[in-house]
Amino acid sequence: MASESSEATRIMVAVNQSTLKGYPHASISSKGAFEWTLHKIVRSNTSGFKLLILHVQVPDEDGFDGVDSIYASPEDFESLRQRDKNNGLQLLHYFVKQCHEIGVACEAWIKTGDAKDVICHEVKRLQPDLLVVGNRGLGPFQKVFVGTVSEFVTKHADCPVISIKRSADQTPQDPAED
Amino acid sequence: MASESSEATRIMVAVNQSTLKGYPHASISSKGAFEWTLHKIVRSNTSGFKLLILHVQVPDEDGFDGVDSIYASPEDFESLRQRDKNNGLQLLHYFVKQCHEIGVACEAWIKTGDAKDVICHEVKRLQPDLLVVGNRGLGPFQKVFVGTVSEFVTKHADCPVISIKRSADQTPQDPAED
Repeated sequence: MASESSEATRIMVAVNQSTLKGYPHASISSKGAFEWTLHKIVRSNTSGFKLLILHVQVPDEDGFDGVDSIYASPEDFESLRQRDKNNGLQLLHYFVKQCHEIGVACEAWIKTGDAKDVICHEVKRLQPDLLVVGNRGLGPFQKVFVGTVSEFVTKHADCPVISIKRSADQTPQDPAED
Repeated sequence: MASESSEATRIMVAVNQSTLKGYPHASISSKGAFEWTLHKIVRSNTSGFKLLILHVQVPDEDGFDGVDSIYASPEDFESLRQRDKNNGLQLLHYFVKQCHEIGVACEAWIKTGDAKDVICHEVKRLQPDLLVVGNRGLGPFQKVFVGTVSEFVTKHADCPVISIKRSADQTPQDPAED
């Protein structure tokens, strides 16, 4: 079997922002998936693992909520892009900080697009040993109305996938919230 | 995060016999799932994990192939039951031996019934942190004709599940074989 001197196990963790609190707060299910990975898999063996933390941003259609978009200048667009980027970086910082504190190697980056497609694409590109995603644990009726990234990537990602369900006591009143 | 003194991460691994070589040989996908767990998750941290190795035996309908079943005596039935049990124990021995060699704690046991139902039931009963199953990696057309235990338990088991696909170079000419 592999010894500690062999290459680290590379675990990709897909994270997103909270729908309840917005940026820079991480969603309940992202936090759960990340903490599960540290507690149940990495444990004290910090040199045996490397975390690859991916945040996918959906192109922001509501970005001009407070702006009259007909008169938006190139500078307005640029400042929105910059705001999105800063938000994403702050979100990633939450996870990277914890990796640094416990001494496990990590990389973190932001991509833009449809989360399920981007995650599968990044798996193909980086070939992690394992992908961990959070999962709101929605029932079939609730799933009709909201995307279920975890279900899609469990089927289509090109590596083993663990989907971590939120515990009942962490589920908000509206389970589509996260 | 959890330190080494905290309770071990309990990983249930479901294993079955080879359809090509029969008992006591393990299926290609079982071996793959087991080895993946040791190499990618347990690594050198043998005290941090405990493996729960479950083998489900389907009640043997072909058991009387060589026997005229109309005249089968209670002793014939008993000897078949005994043969099944020995086969299962030999299969488990293959996995338990490796656990002992590398020094990771394990338990192994046999249950009888429909694999997908029994696995979900055992997960409910023992509440492992993680279930690992092998997966032949069949396409949608092939799945129509053979059971896909991994797909069922990924959806229905009451704990996080990793399904480990066979690598292309380990797949037999008939991919339904294992």
